[in-house]
Amino acid sequence: MATKINLSLPIFLFFLLALFSTLACAKKETEVAADPELKTCKHQCLQQLQYTKADKQICLQSCDMYHGLKHEHEEQTEEKIRKKKKHEGTTQEHDEEEESGEKEEEGEAEEGGEEEEEYPYIFEENCDFDTKVETEDGRIRVLKKFTEKSKLLKGIENIRLAILEARAHTFVAPRHFDSDVLLFNIKGRAVLGWVKESETEKFILESGDVLAIPAGTQVYIINRDENEKLFLAMLHIPVSTPGKFEEFFGPGGRDPESVLSAFGWNVLQAALQSPKGELEKLFEQQNGGSIFQISREQVQKLAPKKTSWWPFSGPSTAEFNLFTMSPTFSNSHGTLTEAAPSDSRSLLHKHNIMISFTNITKESMSTILYNSHATKIAMVISGKGGLQIACPHITSRSQTKHEKSSPSYHRISAELKPGMLFVVPPGHPFVTFSSRKENLQILCFEINARDNKKFTFAGKDNIVSSMDDPAKELGFNYPSKIVNRIFDRKESLFFPFQLPRQGRDRRADA
Amino acid sequence: MATKINLSLPIFLFFLLALFSTLACAKKETEVAADPELKTCKHQCLQQLQYTKADKQICLQSCDMYHGLKHEHEEQTEEKIRKKKKHEGTTQEHDEEEESGEKEEEGEAEEGGEEEEEYPYIFEENCDFDTKVETEDGRIRVLKKFTEKSKLLKGIENIRLAILEARAHTFVAPRHFDSDVLLFNIKGRAVLGWVKESETEKFILESGDVLAIPAGTQVYIINRDENEKLFLAMLHIPVSTPGKFEEFFGPGGRDPESVLSAFGWNVLQAALQSPKGELEKLFEQQNGGSIFQISREQVQKLAPKKTSWWPFSGPSTAEFNLFTMSPTFSNSHGTLTEAAPSDSRSLLHKHNIMISFTNITKESMSTILYNSHATKIAMVISGKGGLQIACPHITSRSQTKHEKSSPSYHRISAELKPGMLFVVPPGHPFVTFSSRKENLQILCFEINARDNKKFTFAGKDNIVSSMDDPAKELGFNYPSKIVNRIFDRKESLFFPFQLPRQGRDRRADA
Amino acid sequence: MATKINLSLPIFLFFLLALFSTLACAKKETEVAADPELKTCKHQCLQQLQYTKADKQICLQSCDMYHGLKHEHEEQTEEKIRKKKKHEGTTQEHDEEEESGEKEEEGEAEEGGEEEEEYPYIFEENCDFDTKVETEDGRIRVLKKFTEKSKLLKGIENIRLAILEARAHTFVAPRHFDSDVLLFNIKGRAVLGWVKESETEKFILESGDVLAIPAGTQVYIINRDENEKLFLAMLHIPVSTPGKFEEFFGPGGRDPESVLSAFGWNVLQAALQSPKGELEKLFEQQNGGSIFQISREQVQKLAPKKTSWWPFSGPSTAEFNLFTMSPTFSNSHGTLTEAAPSDSRSLLHKHNIMISFTNITKESMSTILYNSHATKIAMVISGKGGLQIACPHITSRSQTKHEKSSPSYHRISAELKPGMLFVVPPGHPFVTFSSRKENLQILCFEINARDNKKFTFAGKDNIVSSMDDPAKELGFNYPSKIVNRIFDRKESLFFPFQLPRQGRDRRADA
Repeated sequence: MATKINLSLPIFLFFLLALFSTLACAKKETEVAADPELKTCKHQCLQQLQYTKADKQICLQSCDMYHGLKHEHEEQTEEKIRKKKKHEGTTQEHDEEEESGEKEEEGEAEEGGEEEEEYPYIFEENCDFDTKVETEDGRIRVLKKFTEKSKLLKGIENIRLAILEARAHTFVAPRHFDSDVLLFNIKGRAVLGWVKESETEKFILESGDVLAIPAGTQVYIINRDENEKLFLAMLHIPVSTPGKFEEFFGPGGRDPESVLSAFGWNVLQAALQSPKGELEKLFEQQNGGSIFQISREQVQKLAPKKTSWWPFSGPSTAEFNLFTMSPTFSNSHGTLTEAAPSDSRSLLHKHNIMISFTNITKESMSTILYNSHATKIAMVISGKGGLQIACPHITSRSQTKHEKSSPSYHRISAELKPGMLFVVPPGHPFVTFSSRKENLQILCFEINARDNKKFTFAGKDNIVSSMDDPAKELGFNYPSKIVNRIFDRKESLFFPFQLPRQGRDRRADA
Repeated sequence: MATKINLSLPIFLFFLLALFSTLACAKKETEVAADPELKTCKHQCLQQLQYTKADKQICLQSCDMYHGLKHEHEEQTEEKIRKKKKHEGTTQEHDEEEESGEKEEEGEAEEGGEEEEEYPYIFEENCDFDTKVETEDGRIRVLKKFTEKSKLLKGIENIRLAILEARAHTFVAPRHFDSDVLLFNIKGRAVLGWVKESETEKFILESGDVLAIPAGTQVYIINRDENEKLFLAMLHIPVSTPGKFEEFFGPGGRDPESVLSAFGWNVLQAALQSPKGELEKLFEQQNGGSIFQISREQVQKLAPKKTSWWPFSGPSTAEFNLFTMSPTFSNSHGTLTEAAPSDSRSLLHKHNIMISFTNITKESMSTILYNSHATKIAMVISGKGGLQIACPHITSRSQTKHEKSSPSYHRISAELKPGMLFVVPPGHPFVTFSSRKENLQILCFEINARDNKKFTFAGKDNIVSSMDDPAKELGFNYPSKIVNRIFDRKESLFFPFQLPRQGRDRRADA
Repeated sequence: MATKINLSLPIFLFFLLALFSTLACAKKETEVAADPELKTCKHQCLQQLQYTKADKQICLQSCDMYHGLKHEHEEQTEEKIRKKKKHEGTTQEHDEEEESGEKEEEGEAEEGGEEEEEYPYIFEENCDFDTKVETEDGRIRVLKKFTEKSKLLKGIENIRLAILEARAHTFVAPRHFDSDVLLFNIKGRAVLGWVKESETEKFILESGDVLAIPAGTQVYIINRDENEKLFLAMLHIPVSTPGKFEEFFGPGGRDPESVLSAFGWNVLQAALQSPKGELEKLFEQQNGGSIFQISREQVQKLAPKKTSWWPFSGPSTAEFNLFTMSPTFSNSHGTLTEAAPSDSRSLLHKHNIMISFTNITKESMSTILYNSHATKIAMVISGKGGLQIACPHITSRSQTKHEKSSPSYHRISAELKPGMLFVVPPGHPFVTFSSRKENLQILCFEINARDNKKFTFAGKDNIVSSMDDPAKELGFNYPSKIVNRIFDRKESLFFPFQLPRQGRDRRADA
């Protein structure tokens, strides 16, 4: 089945997902006009001349599927808005409200304020970052503290994620952090200068490169590309105050301000044995900001020596490149590449972090799975798609006593687009899927990665299939023969995102 | 002396302790009618025809001893009630209050609210548990967060204890936790199904068995006994949100709800390649709850293969059995069995936890001792008895400046009965003793067990006896000869709970 | 240059620093009469007959330098007072206030109350300690919880520092702590009794000795000197409640109270097999307090055996002596001695702590440096001097968006005198310097010491000199030739605290 996917399906505007992406955190209410959209989608499927009949069928199904997903999402959003309104409800709206609903919500509040915001695990590019540095030529945005988003994220509260963007031919001024830093080159061509004991070591960082920088290390970065922007993800593990890191500029002047300017003139004169006038001049020159444009000649001067310049030759000198290393798992629907703590250098091991990269082929999905120990901090690098996480419903306990003997679960869902982040806590089953248009690429920092195992609910060796039949039968209260037919599947980890063929005979042609 | 204990002393109602056990957390004021009780106790001692004179003397002493303890406890309780009333005191009661007493309490309050509730280390079966799951056939109760009880327990805030009870022939539905779990079979005969990569491994768990289950592992449990209830203690070490764990049901339906039902139908259809109708049916069947009764045939189907059924043959397959392993220490008054981190498999070692089991013979006591590093989470498995912990009095510091140069200590005391829990922090001396009627059995999880040492105040190698004479003399401001006579004792760890023989010559016959 | 320092410069009253030391935490406003002071200082320089011309020049420069530092400090203090007044400003003062200033401060407050007190890293001997024990013959003072001082110190919140002072010939009564203890003998001659399994081991502790005492260990201490006070620093790492430790007296009576007195008489009688009357007597004798004077004979009895008494012979039996071990670095301006985790016994290693000792020769300074990972808890042992720490200004972020692309840094400065403590977080550059009168001796506990590196801004291999010229030039926006001339310097770590020779030719004679 999976082999029948026609990868040459033409790129036509995947307007549904495009529409999704406008449902940003500002959360303007979307105009629901689903039916015409669905019609257009299907119409376009049928008009693709190069499609085989099977292709067209798949295309039509996909329209239904995405339409369905979008609809589900809108319903959830509407319900949220409704709930919110209820909360903010003034006396004017009082009459329209159900008394019973009111009571339920009060019951939740009594649980001790544990009711988190509805999407504790989803971080929007525009709402959940603070801009720490912004110049004409670049910026550094820092994701808000995880515990600021939700107390449920206390387990990763010491970790901070920053994104550096720098325009072509820019210089990111030398600085050090009071945090260990895991640097990942999302996109672009960089040179990193690492000031070592008596000289500066240069690192060439291509897309996918990973470099671990211990706290206190003086580093500068240049975007050596003439045209393209540079995007770096920097995972900070603070060593001073938990969850808080600072940058310190050594060289600098007024902007960036040199940290040396905090010392008294007498101290500086005695330490540097230079008259005050000379020092005053030194600390007045730099006004360019902490990220600024430089000339092509300056870029060339900063380039590593003994390599023929432009383009760089020689191998990347990063610790490893996540995009080129051999994947942990791969099939035609996706690729998973993991840099496990034991494989890599000390900082990953010291902080018990694994970096992984998932590439989901277009129109595909990952299986439903959960991690046993790792908390996943995931960032969409390219492509669009969707995410669903199953969460034990926080309000379930109050109901438990009266109605049920177990928690109920709610769905956290989000459309994925580049720059979005999400967190998946251990134990929580989740699924990601790509759009029809492009592959979905996700970078993950997996915190607490040691001893982590992935458990799946679908595909080879999933935990339902591996259960003995009598337990399965008791668990579902359903004949194990049917349960087995539903859960057994040969593929692993990545599947096509397709509805099943109709009819009972669907397995016949598998 | 200890050897003269007549173990065949008849079992007569140990009414004092029985009475104690009614002093539950509801804390109704007890009717103090001590004298008649004491009379009855002594009367019964004298009427036991089979007692030797020595037996009768011991019996009479025990009456005095328990009477004394009960009296002390009642006084403490009354004082608590008095204090509480003072706190709640309205203006009507104003006149009766001592001004000085008022001030003192205000002084305490100024210490920054560090005044904890009076029994921060004692957990009652009925008051300090939340019922997480309750069906007709079983329940899971979870001990409240330790820090909810007292900020003093911050050191063990990430740990949660749950007790599973299941009636005969029940099935505890398959689930996984976002926590590493140390499972201890308190009582009963269980089979645990552990879903591994491509099959389900079965574990036979007898009373005393310990099994470590890593987070994310899919497990189910059956009580295979036809008559007896099953009691399991489960120590959870959460891996997601500190101090918080959840259960996730894979197989399930409406109750327990399958975690899969949180996903959208499109995701489920694509992942499981089954039509929506079939999936809807699957997730509607189970309404039995998360613990439910099953037939003898179903129990038999779930039993491990290749063993002749009923009764189970073959050895227990748990990691170890605390009840049958050779004890660390044993004498006629008690037995201590320790499963130290280095002896055992990874989870105990990883979390630096030791599991121990103490069996105090009836009418016996443990020595006064403290742990150097371990915090003891103890649970009474069977028998009755008492506990005393010495605590640095939190209010002492305000007085220190004026009156004394050192803290004063208060006693935390509790009567022990099955199901009660207590915590003993490191450094705090404590003592436990059994009733006259039955052995007292205590299960302990010792947190932060590495490098832990036990230091005793009585018995062989106690820390007073081991001190050089001049220091001892200065410490007590008393002749070392007398101090030595008081502290020297040959026995270790467990003693008879008897008053000393009268007179100075008591050592003569030792 | 450094070699020309005349170490025989006479000791004359360094009145400026003496004046500084009166600027204690009570913070009375100082009478600013700087000019006459400066005149007197210079006058004294010129009158020293034995000075060479060069000596006199250095002396005059030093007057200027210290005058300048003092002036800077006063300005900061005044500004603080001004700010504070503004905060407390009532409506009467309203008119005089600048509207813009007001707004700025409000902006800070909105940052979420992160505005810490102005000197979060400086601890005064008189203000920041609680007296835990005080008798006529000694006292134990405990530094307030670091997080009580500032939330920025959360990283070391579990650590507590205590200072024990005991007069000549005193006995510090036997006790144990619920904390691992790193003991450092600041000054004096002590014997420590360590109660082991069946005997008491005696340790002779001279100044500079370090001893690690695991939690729960019963210890007593005697000051064996006939005249001199004993000063011990004790770094507590609590094992029970984080950030909280208690002392427990085993031997004792009423004062110190024996922890045994918390147990019921029946328990004590049964455990110690002694009649109540005897026990009552035992626990009534000691009223001497937890630190009390003893006779010379008693001191001798407590001394280690098999050494000829008075003076002690034989080597110190501490783990190591920080004052006598070979230094990590030494030049004529200072000495650094480090006892790294790998060198030493388990407790340092277990808690990842390094103990170090810095001796800055008079009229000298340490280089400007920062630690990569370690948080420094430093205590001035002897001498006077100054400290400056560069801190990222907490209020800078609100301005960043509008004015600059980087943080600004403020200076935390303090005069150092014996008994003062300061904390330097990792990443934060700092400098310490001695007075003209005496060497400055600083004891440091370096928390999180593993993988720590020191990075310097001046002296051999400093991070500016080690940067490649193009980056340096871009960083400062200044010709690298001048930057190099300013930053290159042959000496390492410790320099003379002197202003540079005037004129461009200063390097000529280097």
